[in-house]
This record gives sequence, structure tokens and C-alpha cells, in this order.
Amino acid sequence: MSDSLEYAKRLIEAESVTPARGAVFDAMEAMLQPLGFTVSRFTRGEGVEGTPEEPVENLFAIREGPAGSKHFAFAGHLDVVPPGDGWTSDAFGPEIRGDLLYGRGAVDMKGAIACMVDAVAAVPQDAGTISFIITGDEEGPALHGTRALIDWMEEAGHRPDLCLVGEPTSVNRLGDMMKIGRRGSLNIWLEVTGSQGHVAYPHLADNPIPRLIAILAELDALVLDEGTDWFQPSNLEITEIDAMNRAHNVIPGKAKARISIRFNDTHSGASLSELVGKVAEKHGGTALPIISGEPFLTPPGMFSDLIAEAVEAETGVRPEASTTGGTSDARFLRSVCPVIEFGLVNATMHKTDEAVALADLDTLSRIYTRIARGALAQ
Amino acid sequence: MSDSLEYAKRLIEAESVTPARGAVFDAMEAMLQPLGFTVSRFTRGEGVEGTPEEPVENLFAIREGPAGSKHFAFAGHLDVVPPGDGWTSDAFGPEIRGDLLYGRGAVDMKGAIACMVDAVAAVPQDAGTISFIITGDEEGPALHGTRALIDWMEEAGHRPDLCLVGEPTSVNRLGDMMKIGRRGSLNIWLEVTGSQGHVAYPHLADNPIPRLIAILAELDALVLDEGTDWFQPSNLEITEIDAMNRAHNVIPGKAKARISIRFNDTHSGASLSELVGKVAEKHGGTALPIISGEPFLTPPGMFSDLIAEAVEAETGVRPEASTTGGTSDARFLRSVCPVIEFGLVNATMHKTDEAVALADLDTLSRIYTRIARGALAQ
Repeated sequence: MSDSLEYAKRLIEAESVTPARGAVFDAMEAMLQPLGFTVSRFTRGEGVEGTPEEPVENLFAIREGPAGSKHFAFAGHLDVVPPGDGWTSDAFGPEIRGDLLYGRGAVDMKGAIACMVDAVAAVPQDAGTISFIITGDEEGPALHGTRALIDWMEEAGHRPDLCLVGEPTSVNRLGDMMKIGRRGSLNIWLEVTGSQGHVAYPHLADNPIPRLIAILAELDALVLDEGTDWFQPSNLEITEIDAMNRAHNVIPGKAKARISIRFNDTHSGASLSELVGKVAEKHGGTALPIISGEPFLTPPGMFSDLIAEAVEAETGVRPEASTTGGTSDARFLRSVCPVIEFGLVNATMHKTDEAVALADLDTLSRIYTRIARGALAQ
Repeated sequence: MSDSLEYAKRLIEAESVTPARGAVFDAMEAMLQPLGFTVSRFTRGEGVEGTPEEPVENLFAIREGPAGSKHFAFAGHLDVVPPGDGWTSDAFGPEIRGDLLYGRGAVDMKGAIACMVDAVAAVPQDAGTISFIITGDEEGPALHGTRALIDWMEEAGHRPDLCLVGEPTSVNRLGDMMKIGRRGSLNIWLEVTGSQGHVAYPHLADNPIPRLIAILAELDALVLDEGTDWFQPSNLEITEIDAMNRAHNVIPGKAKARISIRFNDTHSGASLSELVGKVAEKHGGTALPIISGEPFLTPPGMFSDLIAEAVEAETGVRPEASTTGGTSDARFLRSVCPVIEFGLVNATMHKTDEAVALADLDTLSRIYTRIARGALAQ
């Protein structure tokens, strides 16, 4: 029986709705120190609480192996999404019912972090260097989270060779999917300005809606790509249109739209922003892009094979190497070293009565031990 | 010097923001009775004050000519739009400054109604039958105004041969424009229903916006007609688009738009509703039309010539016969008899410090006398 259940309970009961600070990091530090880790913690974000600049705590912990040994990193986040209403038991009072442990963060991703901590206890120090890259802001704006950790690590001279992010990537059963990449994400606000007027006198007004429609029709008809060996085709969705005009006899002076693009590694946020900007400009509109994340891909190879073999050895399942779904902090960590995500079953993430199977905690713990040992042996 | 100024002051000081009842009709009745008119007043609209069903007062006054004589009607409204802020003097305290009389309704259209009353004093009773068709709801929903008056007149057996509506049709100087027709007005609410979802998983959602855009692009490209001898081309404006979606990572489940069509007499509200409905249906959308008014046209001829000659005799200007602008109660009166609109200069209508030139009151009074005499002599 591993300690992962005990660790998971301690992390869940330290309430940590994003952005996380304090108690949950105290609990994490208290687990890592007895295992020989040197723990560093720092807070970033100067702003006022309740704003996107609210301070965020981050933690970097390292257990150095022999000189010249490999460096393997576990990465994750201790913040959780708000519990919402309707929980059967206290969202921050971990409770076992049947074969499941209930609590906010059980799968996303305090459960996985508990398994990481438990896993390293079974990896001898002389096997190599192991570190933890843990943020308190992955579920929020992520301005002062993993990005700040990467800067901090660079200044301190810590650079892992491989990194595993413990996001809940499994779909139907533990082990059926890992993420070797994620699409990039880009939102663009489009605006066309005209001149307001009365519908009875259209010659005295300039209706911006037909121009906005021309922009949107052209964007909607774009084929961004046909997909790649590892990515599905990039996709553009029009997510909002609004002319902010309640009066039925008025031609509006402004019309807005918003598009959201999820894109593969044949594009960058900048290249797509330029493409959309040109279409908008052609019809007299403007485009304001906000890039949420660039795509990342760790092409199938040694690292993914190592993970697949570890998972198969413990579960009998060989995980699919997927690039689907939303974004994660792997989009930042890709700049440091090859990164892959693998973790618990995501069926209850962000939901009421989030829960993890007790058996999965034990199994994931053993999988993580195999991955860490394998990565350090490369 | 005519009594039109005195009449105008009495009507303006009887505050009558739409829908009008009571005092302003008392004032009107007190002017008409001494001139030999039989005045009938009735209220329609059963609903609660402050709703579109708020009760509305209407007035029909008649002075019968000899048996078999012609029947000429003046039509208009005693309700006014709210004054708004920033008036130099009390909006409901008529005040003369310089050559102008200030007050809400001075031109739209208490001033014109004052001229009508003054005008009939100069038409002998044996010239024919004259009536006043006066509503308290032209500026509001117009549900229980002129339409109710027309029903009332039909039941009472009163049917004018010609009708003049005193809307402020003059643009730069008194007499430069009359309206021989008005376009129809139609608003259509369009809606496309899809299925909401996350932008990262578009295959699980059905974005309604591209279908709405297809509908709008097709409607915007329509050429409804090329105009007629008397009407400008019908015009379709897209006045609103809205997907009601504030979340940038969500594909919305519904998208709406609203269009406004001003159309000439080559169409009807029903024919255009059907046309737009078919385009919406083709792309899986729905269309809800609300017809505000059908077009009307009194083709140039005897009646317009009579008005033009009366105007030219008093002002030296020959009025342009126009069909431009918004709707008026003439859209209802067209079902009774030929109708044309002619009245004061509209520059200050619905504005702060609405005002009429004192000289225009005298002149319009004389023009209306000429028109009434001429109409009864046909």
C-alpha cells in the first residue's frame, strides 16, 4: 500500500481555489522535505486580490543525483477550480465512499501530485536528479505560474532533460491516453466601425454589419490545414457576434465578433493573427489577437515509448498518443525540454463530486516510479 | 392676424406626452365647438398605464355641409414625444422668443392642428363637409389610435373623399415638400439554433453563427427592386446581430439577428416576410416578421396638384412630391380615401427647443384654407 492516498487527502483538505498560496504549499513542502528534497517557494504577482494580478505561489523542489546524472522533472499545479454547489460531502473534506476518494482536485491534479511524491520515494537518490515544478496558477490566467517558474529555474541553473506533466489525460480507464502535444489557442476580437443612423435614411449612415459578415464569411471558408501525422486539422470557430443595438429603427455604428482558433504546429499564433488581420483589413475592419498558447509537440520516440511501456506494464493498456483537447502548462514547459502529459481519468474533473479510484492512486504511483527510473536511465 | 398662434399656445400648454388623453382634447373640443363642429371623443386600450396597452384618447369632429357635398378631412395627432432635458424655457409653457414660438409639439404637430382649426373658420359651411380625425397615439405603438378612429368612422358612416395629414413635411422652408406616399416598414427577427459546446471540441457542438452569416450574406446581396417612378428602391438593413456569448472558449448554441426593411409599393409586408423566411429556412434558421406599416401612394394628380397650387400661391414655392422618410398614420388612412401629408418645417421635431416660425403659422393657416376649399370644390 502506497502513501499516495494519505498524500492526496492532505493536499485536498488544504483548500486552494485558484490562485493558490499558503497551506497547500506548506503541505507539499512537508511531504517533500523528509524525502531529501530542497524546497524553494516564491510568490509572484504584485496586484490586488480578486484581480488577474492576484499573487500566485510557486514551488520548485529538487533532489540532486550524482554529478553528471540525468534530471527528470514532474510538473503540475496545486490550484483547483471552484467547487460549485451540490457536493455530497465537503469538497475540501476528502472522503472515501466505496472505492473512490472524493474531493476537489482528486483527479485535477492533487491526486496525481500525491502519486508523484509517493513515486519518488521508490527511486534511489543515486539514480539521478529529480525535481518538482509546481504552480498555484494553472486554472487561472497563468500569468505568474509556470512561466515564472521557468524563469526562476533558468536563473538558478536548473534544466531538466525530460518533464512529465500530471494532467488527467486518461479518458475511460487509467492509462488509455497520454498527450504528446497540444494545439495552440488564439482568440481574436474583430471590429468594424461604421456610422450610426436611422433605418429610413440609410444613405446618411454606414452600416458596419455587412462588412463584418464579409469578414466572417471569408474566415469561415478558410481551410487552415489538413492536419498532420500527429494533429487534427486546425479549427476556427466564430464564438460571438454583436452589434449592441437594441433599437429596431437604428442602423448601428459598430459591429463586433470574436473568433477562437485551435491550431496545430503548422501555424503559430503570430502567423494566424496576421492572416486574420489581413482579411479584416480588406473589408475595413480591425483584429485584436490574444494568443493563449502556442502549440507543442513532443514527437513520438524514446520518451513516449518509455511512458507507454511503464503504463502497459502496470495496467496492460498501451496509451494512445494524443494531441487533442485544451491547453495546459506543457505549452510553457516545451521551451525547457521534451514534455509529455500523463495522469488520472478525467471524467470528473471540474465537476461536482470530483473523485479518483483508490486503486488508480496506487497504480499511477507505480507508473510514475517506472517513468522516473526509466527517464533517469536514458 | 389669424388665431393659429393662440390655438397653438393652448394646445402646447396642455401637456400630452404619448399616449395623450384629457386636457389637450378638452382644449381641442373647446376650439372646434364654436366653429360649428360636432365633437365625438372615445378612449381605446384596456390595459395598464405604462404598457403598450395604455388607454388612448381619440377625437372625431365633423361640420356637415349641404346634402351631397364633398367631405374633406384634416388628420393629425395631439400626442407628443417626451421633451427630454435641456430646454431653454418650459417645454409645456409656450414662449415666444424673437420670431419663434417654442414648445413641445410646436411643429409635430400641435402647430399644424392649430392652423387646421383656424383654416376652417375661413371656409363657409355650405362649401361642404369638413372633419377632424385626431388621435392621441401616433408617436407610440399606434395600436389604438388612427386605426380605431377609422373603425369608429366606418361604423358611424363617415367617409371623407380626401384627407390631409398635417405632419411636418417641409424641410428647409415651409412649402418645399409634401408626402404623396410613404414606404412600408417591416422588422424581421432571425434566429438559428445550434448546439453549445467547447471550442476545443467543435465536433461535439453545432455552431449556429456560420449559418446565420450565410442567411445574412444572402439577404444583404438581395436587390429588392430598382425603385419606381415615385419611390426610391426598397432597402434592407441588418440592424442587429447577437450570439449572446461572453465566454471566449464556448461555441454558442444560438445566434440571432434583426433586419429592418423599408419598402415601396412593389412589395407588401407579407411578400417580403415570405421571401426572407425562405432564405432563413434554406440555412436552417427561422424568421419572425413584424409589419409596422404597409406602403401607401397617392399618385400625383388632382389632389397633389391642388395642394401644390395652394402652397405656391401662398409661398411662391412649389412643393416636391416625395415618398421618403419614416412612416405616419397616413399608412392607415390610405384605406379610407386618397391621403397626402403637408405641414410645417421639420428641422426641430422631436428635438430640444422645438419651435415654429410665427409667420409660418399664419401662412400654413391660409394654405390649409385654400386646400380645404379646393378639395370641397372638386
